[in-house]
Amino acid sequence: MSGSLVSPATRQRVRDLATPIATALGRLGLTPNALTLIGFVGTFVAAWAAAGQWWLAAGILVLVFGIFDLFDGTLARATGRASRFGAFLDSTLDRAGEAVIYLGIVVGCLGAGYVLGAVLAPAAMAAAFMVSYARAKAESLGFESGSGMANVGLAPREVRIVILALGLLTAGGASLDALGLALGLIAVLATVTTVQRILHIRAQSREG
Amino acid sequence: MSGSLVSPATRQRVRDLATPIATALGRLGLTPNALTLIGFVGTFVAAWAAAGQWWLAAGILVLVFGIFDLFDGTLARATGRASRFGAFLDSTLDRAGEAVIYLGIVVGCLGAGYVLGAVLAPAAMAAAFMVSYARAKAESLGFESGSGMANVGLAPREVRIVILALGLLTAGGASLDALGLALGLIAVLATVTTVQRILHIRAQSREG
Repeated sequence: MSGSLVSPATRQRVRDLATPIATALGRLGLTPNALTLIGFVGTFVAAWAAAGQWWLAAGILVLVFGIFDLFDGTLARATGRASRFGAFLDSTLDRAGEAVIYLGIVVGCLGAGYVLGAVLAPAAMAAAFMVSYARAKAESLGFESGSGMANVGLAPREVRIVILALGLLTAGGASLDALGLALGLIAVLATVTTVQRILHIRAQSREG
Repeated sequence: MSGSLVSPATRQRVRDLATPIATALGRLGLTPNALTLIGFVGTFVAAWAAAGQWWLAAGILVLVFGIFDLFDGTLARATGRASRFGAFLDSTLDRAGEAVIYLGIVVGCLGAGYVLGAVLAPAAMAAAFMVSYARAKAESLGFESGSGMANVGLAPREVRIVILALGLLTAGGASLDALGLALGLIAVLATVTTVQRILHIRAQSREG
């Protein structure tokens, strides 16, 4: 029920790798919130590449900014500047950034005459949004706080980013069908994840 | 900053009107969660109408199920059966339902060869999602609980539903451009609302 495609140990290992880079960015004078905003602007570049059907570039940029997104929270924790507003801004702009990329993909698919992609991209976007929304809403109602919920469900954000980037990279090298497959996979896995989270919350509410 | 297009008094008046209908539905043996699920299924019917380019029917169904959505919470409160899981399920399926309708509109626009609508529909969906996500995330971080946040921002859900329904109805009677206009308006108003909410949270975090 609660097995993710990414184990908590892997998650921690990636965070450990991010710490030296994040603190180096901090020494350049960048604050965690500045890193959040830079990452958000970066998603517009990725979206612009996708809209222009430069799929390979879009795939690389999605990966780069997906990794970059680790640095704001890591820097905040490493320098004792983690704040509630910082956490709020990070999560909110992560969602907005994800949406912007999918909108870029919609435009790119329409430009390429790939109608199926123009339907699957908003479906993947909606499904991805639902995963994050279900978590935030549950926590707002006091169901569970902290990172516990992040481990519930097949397809948290990092899994979705990797699938999307692979789809974009393959679309650039081979066929747009790879992008359609990635989008469809994200839509299905994210929907399953949301259902897993709803059932997890229902189980919690029955215990309580 | 915090003026909504719907006043708290209007909101309360609509809720008062919903109470007798909601309790009547309850006497038929329907639970609040059953009403939530019926409303969610209803959004698929609205989406199916939009996908088939029956715009007039889609507009009417969006309004009907937008009103129907008032009944689950009203019944729960009136019968003292309001639960945290019920609130969670209601909010989560409201988001999913909104997404399903926009996906139906994407398909309908593509079928009608109205490419602009196929871009504006996911943009409106994303912007609408951001409004709800920003609220849930802020509340999950303890910024504000209850309904205070619902009054921050121009375009809460009821405003979006009315704009969308008007766009669909006009698309059915006159031109698809009306639908495009409605979708664009929702995208803009909802984005402004999200920015208003982010600034509202920042102000709160500085007071604290």
